[in-house]
Amino acid sequence: MTQRFSYQLQSTDGQARQGIVHTPRGDIRTPAFMPVGTAATVKAMMPSSVRETGADILLGNTYHLMLRPTAERIASLGGLHRFMNWDGPILTDSGGFQVMSLAELRKLTEEGVSFRSHIDGSRHMLTPERSMEIQRLLGSDIVMCFDECPALPADRARLESSMQLSMRWAQRSRDAFGDRPGHALFGIQQGGDDEELRGQSAEALRAIEFDGYAVGGLAVGEGQEIMFRVLDYAPAMLPTDKPRYLMGVGKPDDLVGAVKRGIDMFDCVLPSRSGRTGQAFTARGVVNIKNARHQDDPRPLEEGCPCPACSGYSRAYLHHVFRAKEIISSMLLTWHNLTYYQRLMADMRAAIAEQKFAEFEAKFHAGRAQGDVEPV
Amino acid sequence: MTQRFSYQLQSTDGQARQGIVHTPRGDIRTPAFMPVGTAATVKAMMPSSVRETGADILLGNTYHLMLRPTAERIASLGGLHRFMNWDGPILTDSGGFQVMSLAELRKLTEEGVSFRSHIDGSRHMLTPERSMEIQRLLGSDIVMCFDECPALPADRARLESSMQLSMRWAQRSRDAFGDRPGHALFGIQQGGDDEELRGQSAEALRAIEFDGYAVGGLAVGEGQEIMFRVLDYAPAMLPTDKPRYLMGVGKPDDLVGAVKRGIDMFDCVLPSRSGRTGQAFTARGVVNIKNARHQDDPRPLEEGCPCPACSGYSRAYLHHVFRAKEIISSMLLTWHNLTYYQRLMADMRAAIAEQKFAEFEAKFHAGRAQGDVEPV
Ligand SMILES: [Zn+2]
Ligand SMILES: [Zn+2]
Repeated sequence: MTQRFSYQLQSTDGQARQGIVHTPRGDIRTPAFMPVGTAATVKAMMPSSVRETGADILLGNTYHLMLRPTAERIASLGGLHRFMNWDGPILTDSGGFQVMSLAELRKLTEEGVSFRSHIDGSRHMLTPERSMEIQRLLGSDIVMCFDECPALPADRARLESSMQLSMRWAQRSRDAFGDRPGHALFGIQQGGDDEELRGQSAEALRAIEFDGYAVGGLAVGEGQEIMFRVLDYAPAMLPTDKPRYLMGVGKPDDLVGAVKRGIDMFDCVLPSRSGRTGQAFTARGVVNIKNARHQDDPRPLEEGCPCPACSGYSRAYLHHVFRAKEIISSMLLTWHNLTYYQRLMADMRAAIAEQKFAEFEAKFHAGRAQGDVEPV
Repeated sequence: MTQRFSYQLQSTDGQARQGIVHTPRGDIRTPAFMPVGTAATVKAMMPSSVRETGADILLGNTYHLMLRPTAERIASLGGLHRFMNWDGPILTDSGGFQVMSLAELRKLTEEGVSFRSHIDGSRHMLTPERSMEIQRLLGSDIVMCFDECPALPADRARLESSMQLSMRWAQRSRDAFGDRPGHALFGIQQGGDDEELRGQSAEALRAIEFDGYAVGGLAVGEGQEIMFRVLDYAPAMLPTDKPRYLMGVGKPDDLVGAVKRGIDMFDCVLPSRSGRTGQAFTARGVVNIKNARHQDDPRPLEEGCPCPACSGYSRAYLHHVFRAKEIISSMLLTWHNLTYYQRLMADMRAAIAEQKFAEFEAKFHAGRAQGDVEPV
């Protein structure tokens, strides 16, 4: 195990990249999907089970954890890894995005964002410096710069001033982060869907120098077409020798299209949230387990899936426990969905290594076009 | 593995008994605690995890399963064991008790009980014959007679007529059950807190002959003192060469007092239900994890407990996820509570085998008298 943070590019196929992020807490095989452990738990899953699905790294949310149980408390308990019983790498977001979407009475200034907690109304302030401090207290392995991003569509003036603010905050984040061997700080490219602004942002970040780079400001309501259009140019503006992370993405076809365009890392609540609402991802598309067509179906959710939901239970059972609002429904469907996501990433890594990403992509879309198996 | 159902008494200490129930699906070490899997799941637990806590057998609820997903559906899907992915023995109750506590518009006649489902208002009828049919469709290993029991206190006339009805239903259950090698039918003693009626009920059941005998009509509001007073004489009225089952019991000290008085089998929702409401059972009494005293406590819930909640997490974490309403809170606390119950049963079995039940009992009560560890 290395004691330094580094990225090793192992193979490419077109723009798609396959590699390994080395960290003192273990390797991250890329392209990687990071399950989201918002409040120090991947909802409805034991950490050991998340690991078994093939996850190398988890994401934790600074905004949620700073409010409850607080970063200081987690630090005094030995850090987030020990607290949540996950010894692999953890990436934490900066809190900026969720402050803007969840907190109350927000006020944005050059200094940072003041707000009230959505949990208990308490007053807080997040700045680049405070975000770095919180992520250090949590013991995060990959720390994200504190930034700000507008929802799309937004006019150029808004995109430009926002991007420039984020770049000033990126420098402050870098300064506050300091020198922490074995820990990484990622910069976040902004600029919305404006290629020139994306270029300026990339240039600013490269001048500061980071251990990795996120493409930020996407998956904020713009739709897949605009997102892919930005991904046609944005990743190539970033250094090839560092990992590239697309924040908050996404659906399976978003992942495939983004990997094709040069993205290495992803996070999204979709597989776990969908698991709790009865939506299961399969190679033949989404299965809605609450549908009555499943109530007598002895077949597994997805043939060949190694997860406990598919190897141990029928669709009829999954339908029953969903309808009966049993906790095992969320447990099993989340388990399946995270397994599906990790298998998808593994398949993409193998396809890139074998220079067969186009074949993979064709097969991926053909499977989904088939639709679910015929009812019994 | 035997192909027949049998009970092997291995040792006694006073009235306390230690033995093994042999079934074609595996042995049940007694005294045994059976976790409750009401709707074909032990809430918040994977079956493999329930097994790991030390459980040899689960209980399923006829009333819930006949309404949803229905016994016929479970039969067509291969039976309850396959449906819920548990290959050990399953005991099913007769549905009688829960019809009287949960269903609507109940009407009790000599024939049985008609009622409306509490889920969808549909009309159903449970009789001894229908209960036997449902339990056969489920594939239950230990089938309970269909009976009726009054809440205590009840006057003698009510106790007597109810007991006599249950004895007529016991004969009808026996007749309808038929000859099913490898499957067991348990009779249920009634008679409330009246020793003479308990004797008459035992006599009636012994004349019919069953594979095991339950002490019914207790844990229905009478309190521990009255329950123990009945258990001072009721178990001894039943055959010594068959297992004795106290239905719906109970708290840890209920179990200890009942084992002392000759009971071999128990079931109760308490450990799993308490797990979902933040109550944890320990050798030093009940810990209320939502109490603020735990929020900075790095210690495990219970020192020396091998369960994942205690081996992987601090009280501070368990407090946090309970307050954050995270599903893992129910998962971990249920896991701990079921582990606590199974360790308690294992300790009692060992104490009886070594003729040290009195020492065990003294230590059990001394531990609880200590109270929880001092706050940090
Ligand atoms: Zn699966
Ligand atoms: Zn424990």
